Amino acid sequence: MRRKVFEDWNATLEPAQSDDPSDDVVSFRSRLLDRDVPIEPTLAHQPEGVRAAAMAAGIKYEGVLDFSVVKLDEPGVAAGVFTKSLCPGFAVRFDREVLADGRAQALAVVSKNANVFTPHGEADTLTTARCLAGELGVDANDVVLSFTGVIGVPLPMDKVRAAIAGVSRKLRPMALDEVSRAILTTDRRPKVCSVRIGDVVVCGLAKGAGMIEPNMATMLVYFFTNADVAPAALNEILSGAVDRTFNRLSVDSDTSTSDSVVVFSTRRARLDDASRSDFVDAVRCMSLKLARDVVIQAEGATKLIECTVRLDTSVADAAIVAKKVVNSPLVKTAMHGGDPNWGRIVMAIGKPDERVAIHAISPAELTITLMGHTVFARSAAIEVDLAALARTIKSSTRVFIDVSIGAGRHAATVWGCDLSHRYIDINADYTT
Amino acid sequence: MRRKVFEDWNATLEPAQSDDPSDDVVSFRSRLLDRDVPIEPTLAHQPEGVRAAAMAAGIKYEGVLDFSVVKLDEPGVAAGVFTKSLCPGFAVRFDREVLADGRAQALAVVSKNANVFTPHGEADTLTTARCLAGELGVDANDVVLSFTGVIGVPLPMDKVRAAIAGVSRKLRPMALDEVSRAILTTDRRPKVCSVRIGDVVVCGLAKGAGMIEPNMATMLVYFFTNADVAPAALNEILSGAVDRTFNRLSVDSDTSTSDSVVVFSTRRARLDDASRSDFVDAVRCMSLKLARDVVIQAEGATKLIECTVRLDTSVADAAIVAKKVVNSPLVKTAMHGGDPNWGRIVMAIGKPDERVAIHAISPAELTITLMGHTVFARSAAIEVDLAALARTIKSSTRVFIDVSIGAGRHAATVWGCDLSHRYIDINADYTT
Repeated sequence: MRRKVFEDWNATLEPAQSDDPSDDVVSFRSRLLDRDVPIEPTLAHQPEGVRAAAMAAGIKYEGVLDFSVVKLDEPGVAAGVFTKSLCPGFAVRFDREVLADGRAQALAVVSKNANVFTPHGEADTLTTARCLAGELGVDANDVVLSFTGVIGVPLPMDKVRAAIAGVSRKLRPMALDEVSRAILTTDRRPKVCSVRIGDVVVCGLAKGAGMIEPNMATMLVYFFTNADVAPAALNEILSGAVDRTFNRLSVDSDTSTSDSVVVFSTRRARLDDASRSDFVDAVRCMSLKLARDVVIQAEGATKLIECTVRLDTSVADAAIVAKKVVNSPLVKTAMHGGDPNWGRIVMAIGKPDERVAIHAISPAELTITLMGHTVFARSAAIEVDLAALARTIKSSTRVFIDVSIGAGRHAATVWGCDLSHRYIDINADYTT
Repeated sequence: MRRKVFEDWNATLEPAQSDDPSDDVVSFRSRLLDRDVPIEPTLAHQPEGVRAAAMAAGIKYEGVLDFSVVKLDEPGVAAGVFTKSLCPGFAVRFDREVLADGRAQALAVVSKNANVFTPHGEADTLTTARCLAGELGVDANDVVLSFTGVIGVPLPMDKVRAAIAGVSRKLRPMALDEVSRAILTTDRRPKVCSVRIGDVVVCGLAKGAGMIEPNMATMLVYFFTNADVAPAALNEILSGAVDRTFNRLSVDSDTSTSDSVVVFSTRRARLDDASRSDFVDAVRCMSLKLARDVVIQAEGATKLIECTVRLDTSVADAAIVAKKVVNSPLVKTAMHGGDPNWGRIVMAIGKPDERVAIHAISPAELTITLMGHTVFARSAAIEVDLAALARTIKSSTRVFIDVSIGAGRHAATVWGCDLSHRYIDINADYTT
């Protein structure tokens, strides 16, 4: 089983040693890497015809970047994937309607206020879209909106209106770096990446997992590209990428009301079959990079936990079982303390879940590997130097857990992080 | 809505002010309390014909009570409810078979070792049962076994055999207090209760939620009674009680491989209709008391969180939504810090769950009450002194959260606790 500790992001894309075509981990073999086309951890590549501006609107604090606008010169195609929360924010509901026709021309992001479950939140959302559409000279149905920050505090509409007024004159090309900073709340640093493959450019920016104010870890991710893809195909490409990346990470098992991943394209670069495959590859690899960045920089996180589960029923089941492992407070605290206590992994995979088609796991079919060392193998007694393994975990910023149940025909990898004192400090602070 | 802060356990049984027959909280109105029959927080009442002994067998440490045996003079009836873990311990699998005929005569509990996913765990379980049956002169199919402690460490069978040898001579009546101490691992103190209603005696003992060694919070609960109830009826009475009590608590969302609740009866006290109702009432009230004790004494817990959810679909849905609230790390840390951040409660109830027949929750149908203060009411702006509310939460050891969705025809209450630094300290320690 592959067990390579990578410090360089692009190294995660190396082909895994597996003959199994249903192995979900292998799918991150990158076409691009084969040709030495690296995914840059910067916004060096940005599509033409995309202008942006960020400013300090005073949404919660004065003098802090908290409002950003991106405009495509002409209406482009767009697709989005949003939170599955039963209590989604007003912007999420609004964006779902805006993106129903696969067309968008502008994005505005307000940070430090989630505009969720506020008394006039729906009206405030519509007003923001209409004001911005008027200012930018675009259709209000082509404006995508995001809000991120504290829930339940009314949006200061006077400040939003003031920020919108005159913003069209501030828009500049190659300005997405500013946006990547303005959308942050308490993230440690901006999370960005970009790639150029011939004429095709794709760039991505993400925020997530930080909180200064009491708030949940909202994740916002935007991609901008010039790849000429029809709306339905763009949707499919994005959903496919999100399913194996953003939907495979968990900081603390809590689901935000505002999570959004949206891709915009100017459609200026025509694609042939090869460049279309490159584009799909790029979106998936960039999604993986940004997803991992979110977890690595998560609240209080000191270790990335990468859990791969192999089992016989389906990739979806493997992902659910792997999430049980990375979400278990007892596994998270054990890894935080450098404790190779694999009994907690047994406990976690045993947690009942009606979605999984496995009704019992016998010792005879289970193998558990920690940092490449087998600690439990199909009921057999295993000699492991647990003290040495503990030292390895303690000194690592990435912990690898591999679980195999039965023949292990289907595999999925999930990313999580440890649970530290700092997580409690960040989230127990009374700051209302 | 009832919102009484109770310090006295029996006060929790006061009738609630609700006209709604489907309100699950009301069901804890106690027949016994009406007649001034208190449930004692001691083992003052124990059924005759039940003898017990506890000893230090040296399972993990020397000189610590870790092995206990209870014997009924004659075979009695018994019923059990066990963990839903997909990886149950060997004892759980064994006990399910033993109790299939509703008959049992002895109980043995080994603490400090879970005998779960050990190489010879199944054989060790059978050997323990056979040795004990021989020593006690009972049928091996009438022996109920529990193991609790670290997972994956082989059971020291020489010490188990040595402890069993001669134990029949050590058995004494009125000795369940010793057992209540011997079954503990890192619990702060024994959790016991008992009641006498005429001729009928019921007593209960529980362990759970402590860990010194890296291990999961296994919960073991035993009831002993003389009530003459047929096996099928006893099963039904126990399941009904467990469903609304032990199945409604969560310390950290992790499910043990060994959770067991077993009731044994000598059948010496005949029941008429009235005393039968009293017995059912006693088992339910005692289950509630022991369940609350487990949470109050949970690892690192400083506050009990009692969450009542009212909604329109079913009591089961209400319980699932309430569990989302008490299991959310962000709600748990907020309550720990005394932060009345109700946005996190919105987030938690919004977490998607395929089991619940609710697909969206609109602001217009939601009301949230914290410590009796309404903080969100059907989209209306609410004036709340959040600083005062924060002070109230900070100074309370019990936090009450009430959520109402729609007309709120069905209600369920769930018990959890806050997430503190001590939870991390206890569970991150490397002690392999």
